[in-house]
Amino acid sequence: MDRTTIGRDTRVCMSLSARPGNAGSRLHNWLYDRYGLDYLYKSFTTTDLPAAVGGIRALGIRGCAISMPFKEAVIPLLDGLEASARAIDSVNTIVNDDGVLTGYNTDYVAVRALVEQRMARPMPFVLRGSGGMAKAVAAALRDAGFTQGTIVARNPASGPALARATGFAWVPELPATGAPLLVNVTPLGMEGPQADELAFPQEQIEAATMAFDVVAQPAQTPFIAAAQAAGKPVISGAEVIVLQAVEQFALYTGIRPDDEAVALAATFAHGAAVAEKLGAGKIVVD
Amino acid sequence: MDRTTIGRDTRVCMSLSARPGNAGSRLHNWLYDRYGLDYLYKSFTTTDLPAAVGGIRALGIRGCAISMPFKEAVIPLLDGLEASARAIDSVNTIVNDDGVLTGYNTDYVAVRALVEQRMARPMPFVLRGSGGMAKAVAAALRDAGFTQGTIVARNPASGPALARATGFAWVPELPATGAPLLVNVTPLGMEGPQADELAFPQEQIEAATMAFDVVAQPAQTPFIAAAQAAGKPVISGAEVIVLQAVEQFALYTGIRPDDEAVALAATFAHGAAVAEKLGAGKIVVD
Repeated sequence: MDRTTIGRDTRVCMSLSARPGNAGSRLHNWLYDRYGLDYLYKSFTTTDLPAAVGGIRALGIRGCAISMPFKEAVIPLLDGLEASARAIDSVNTIVNDDGVLTGYNTDYVAVRALVEQRMARPMPFVLRGSGGMAKAVAAALRDAGFTQGTIVARNPASGPALARATGFAWVPELPATGAPLLVNVTPLGMEGPQADELAFPQEQIEAATMAFDVVAQPAQTPFIAAAQAAGKPVISGAEVIVLQAVEQFALYTGIRPDDEAVALAATFAHGAAVAEKLGAGKIVVD
Repeated sequence: MDRTTIGRDTRVCMSLSARPGNAGSRLHNWLYDRYGLDYLYKSFTTTDLPAAVGGIRALGIRGCAISMPFKEAVIPLLDGLEASARAIDSVNTIVNDDGVLTGYNTDYVAVRALVEQRMARPMPFVLRGSGGMAKAVAAALRDAGFTQGTIVARNPASGPALARATGFAWVPELPATGAPLLVNVTPLGMEGPQADELAFPQEQIEAATMAFDVVAQPAQTPFIAAAQAAGKPVISGAEVIVLQAVEQFALYTGIRPDDEAVALAATFAHGAAVAEKLGAGKIVVD
């Protein structure tokens, strides 16, 4: 839809982050167009989170994605938290129903859905990381019925805290033996200085049942590449980033886009490399 | 431009009013497109003006049109007033320069420009009305050098107050004789219950030098129609509404659109009936 058709009935969704990107705008605006919805999506940054959230309420902004560093600071500004956000005390999505702001965490929702779809039953795992996204992944695994897991994190505060909160074990260094499910929630393999690093040793990848990397940029991390070369099913960060945005779209509009629309939107938003990873590991592990 | 191209660099302008219309969005968005500017314009309403203005600041909204009933209430929420707003203690436009909010009144600017362009010298006038727009028109006439004028308003508070503030005379009822310049700033002739009412008696119109009607809906009020039938040059509300928006556009973007662009934007925003009134009276009264 053309910008000249924007009018009083156009609903606005937005994002707040320290450094806004364009992928969210592209994905949401593409889907609005696909479904003929009179919505628009705009990314913003702010240095005054309370005033920005006050503006969301006062202007009737329908929904807002919340990125670093606002995911926890936003909580006291809201009217309530939905279960997904309560599970990890972290909000990545605000839904505004006539001035009542509710916090959600669609990272948690997306990870939990992916885990439950791709694995017929829980299995022991090793998870590297203890940041905000690690909280979402560990809680999603716990709530999907996973009981045997080890959090690997050097940070002597956040590592044990996450382990305590989720009921898993904590170790500061990668253990000598892996686990059936290997999960990377660190920047290892991410575009930048650690792009070439393999999140788990080759032999642990070969011995594993499944690989799960939360890094989305690039879609094909060394870890994902090694797992696929070893014939293992994978869940990629590309899937998480797209599916969490699709969850937001469904919350804002009430419409759940079909697989084809999601794949096309992901291609438009993130490029073919990411879109191609969508459902790359749609083999259910039994 | 397509909505799917909205991104982090897109600048947002907006409006705040009790009952948002679509004409402002259409005019501004059309001009952004015409000049290839990565801007978008969205109309909003609010029940919490301080939070809405806080949101403008916190989100870096570039500019905001202010309509009834917020034009005076918004003043204490701003960092300063430009001369046009100070002249009448009424703001219809906020410009946000990196978090510093300045109030303008582009109604005043547009009326003053029209008056100075169309009349070679000041002349005595009768002006009907004492509301917010009457303030802008009376102050613009005063600042354009008009010294002999009568404010006609039944309201025993706002009528005398406006006369005092601008240095003109006040009478509660229309005088028996008119003046060279007749100005209507009441709803007489406006779409609705008073659509058929003529703002000034036929004989005063015939005796006048020029007619100025601030009513824009419809563009052709009975007053404007009678003045044109009597061969008088006119300034129409259609001109004011478009030119004040063009002033906003220039403040927000730094670009002053050419006459052709303005006429096309007005047609897109208001329809041909309004656009055709643009410059309808471009005869300078000497």
